[in-house]
Amino acid sequence: LLTLRGAQLLHEADLVLYDYLVNPGVLDHGRHDAEWICLGRHGRASLWEPSRIHAAMIAGARAGKCVVRLKGGDPLVFGRAAGELEALQQAGIPFEIVPGITAGLAAAAYAGLPLTNREMASAVALVTGQEGEGKGGAELDYEALARFPGTIVMYMGVTTAGVWSHQLIHAGMAPETPVLFVRRCSWPNQETLSCRLDEVAAKVLPYSKFPPPAVAIIGEVAIQHKRWGWWEQRPLGGQSVLVTRPRHQAAKLCESLAALGADVVCQPAIEILPPESWDAVDRELDRIHEFDFVVFSSSNGVSAICDRWLTRGRDFRGWGIYAPIWSQNEAFMPNEWWTFCAIRFRGDIAC
Amino acid sequence: LLTLRGAQLLHEADLVLYDYLVNPGVLDHGRHDAEWICLGRHGRASLWEPSRIHAAMIAGARAGKCVVRLKGGDPLVFGRAAGELEALQQAGIPFEIVPGITAGLAAAAYAGLPLTNREMASAVALVTGQEGEGKGGAELDYEALARFPGTIVMYMGVTTAGVWSHQLIHAGMAPETPVLFVRRCSWPNQETLSCRLDEVAAKVLPYSKFPPPAVAIIGEVAIQHKRWGWWEQRPLGGQSVLVTRPRHQAAKLCESLAALGADVVCQPAIEILPPESWDAVDRELDRIHEFDFVVFSSSNGVSAICDRWLTRGRDFRGWGIYAPIWSQNEAFMPNEWWTFCAIRFRGDIAC
Repeated sequence: LLTLRGAQLLHEADLVLYDYLVNPGVLDHGRHDAEWICLGRHGRASLWEPSRIHAAMIAGARAGKCVVRLKGGDPLVFGRAAGELEALQQAGIPFEIVPGITAGLAAAAYAGLPLTNREMASAVALVTGQEGEGKGGAELDYEALARFPGTIVMYMGVTTAGVWSHQLIHAGMAPETPVLFVRRCSWPNQETLSCRLDEVAAKVLPYSKFPPPAVAIIGEVAIQHKRWGWWEQRPLGGQSVLVTRPRHQAAKLCESLAALGADVVCQPAIEILPPESWDAVDRELDRIHEFDFVVFSSSNGVSAICDRWLTRGRDFRGWGIYAPIWSQNEAFMPNEWWTFCAIRFRGDIAC
Repeated sequence: LLTLRGAQLLHEADLVLYDYLVNPGVLDHGRHDAEWICLGRHGRASLWEPSRIHAAMIAGARAGKCVVRLKGGDPLVFGRAAGELEALQQAGIPFEIVPGITAGLAAAAYAGLPLTNREMASAVALVTGQEGEGKGGAELDYEALARFPGTIVMYMGVTTAGVWSHQLIHAGMAPETPVLFVRRCSWPNQETLSCRLDEVAAKVLPYSKFPPPAVAIIGEVAIQHKRWGWWEQRPLGGQSVLVTRPRHQAAKLCESLAALGADVVCQPAIEILPPESWDAVDRELDRIHEFDFVVFSSSNGVSAICDRWLTRGRDFRGWGIYAPIWSQNEAFMPNEWWTFCAIRFRGDIAC
């Protein structure tokens, strides 16, 4: 769910300062020769202080580096961006803000819940369950929230579930209001938990029952998960699939399986290497004009033989090239060698 | 701001049903051979009825097509997704929901406003200014909104600005509450308008002063636009730049200018074509062994001559290839022809 602009800037970055919770797939969009610094994990001693993060961003920028400060979700929604923007502005460092899909809206999409809806909800509120902590104990205005004319999306609300569910009911929200918790949103092991507002504490506490981080969606729309919860309804949802193809050929299969809902583990059991000696191959290539057809059983064979042929200073002029019936490609009859170069990675072919 | 998953599905789509307001840049991620249907413009007679949209989606899917229903922003936030999900579910068509950056959060990012902030705002409410219309006149609960403990983001609130600003003040919100309107968010001609809540009607009405669509951000955070409004502060912000390079070579320059804030108009004044006759070129190529060096003044020349050379059945074995000093490429001395093929589009080279 990274944006194209986000991917582009990650690719340009010389220095990436990222939060522990960022999806590892996102990191793949950066360059391997960039400097990658993880700013630690919440609740662990290794978490960087804001002042240290500011200093690292500013030092990187002053050294002429393209610096990306990467956060999960949207940096402007419970992302503590203000302090970092202030530090950059005071240092005179120009910046760009790239929004991301915030966790609450991602959770709604992956749970199949339209957050607004003519019949059920005119508005959406994004609220954090950790508010007291951030404000030295000051609490949310639960009376205002209980009256909010729409869906409430509670971020980081697992550990405080007992407090907010009680307070919302106390402030007048109906005890039977539907609630849906979503954790590991968009991951193969995404989990959801449906309950009523007055059942929240019993269902998720102690929080080992439904470990954070998770988002809670509170309001009439939450009942729609049963009908439109497409993520859990995918054909391979909940299945783990092991793919053993060589790494360079596994991507497409892994992607297709993941699109059908599988949790794909890519563990190549085969590696394609050149033979210890090319002598036997070279002998056959030297008398290739004696054959009417050379038929390959795999694209690895096509690739290896063509490379060998070219390495020995030959080209493909005069060769006819056919795609086999089972690959459903069109047949190719090139009269220039580079057509062959262009097609030889497209799949199984015989030449 | 399209997500990678969104771009991937657009690329796979055989049929794209899109709203009028979708950014044209997004459409470029689809295939040219896909079927593209614009569902019309709000307020015009040509707007498709929901039942017709549902029928088109279902017919496409039943014909075995990969169908993308493309909406601007996030489909689950004021995107009228519920009716479409219901139609698909009743027809038994499996679907996937890909969230997008919703307009309100994009506006915040491009205006430089953290929507939550320890000192100023504990929560964010997304609200539509067209609520009455959608509910047959029923109004928003302004008393609850006026008490909302955080930032309010009002979608589609220009034409109704007089109503909601008056009602919020009447319900107890401070008249001096800062408001920031953002229109054409993330476009080169993005516009913002800062005012107090009690000045809203005078500043934007009649709405020709600040035409919709626009988002209004209401709350203390709105004052930060002066300091962190990075979009307007970019070096080429507000400048239009005409790029006259040939289309296939203009992309990188256009992208760099746009990244600095320019409104780039790409209007090629040059087109690179083959000569009417190759005779003069062929004469020189036939005696190329008489030259020590062939020096090209542009990559177009390299490209054209190499193509011609290959077309005439030659290859590049034995040629030495040098990158010129000014392009700062490394010098290449390949002993196999395909190295040349690989490098000849990298920039100006001489061979």
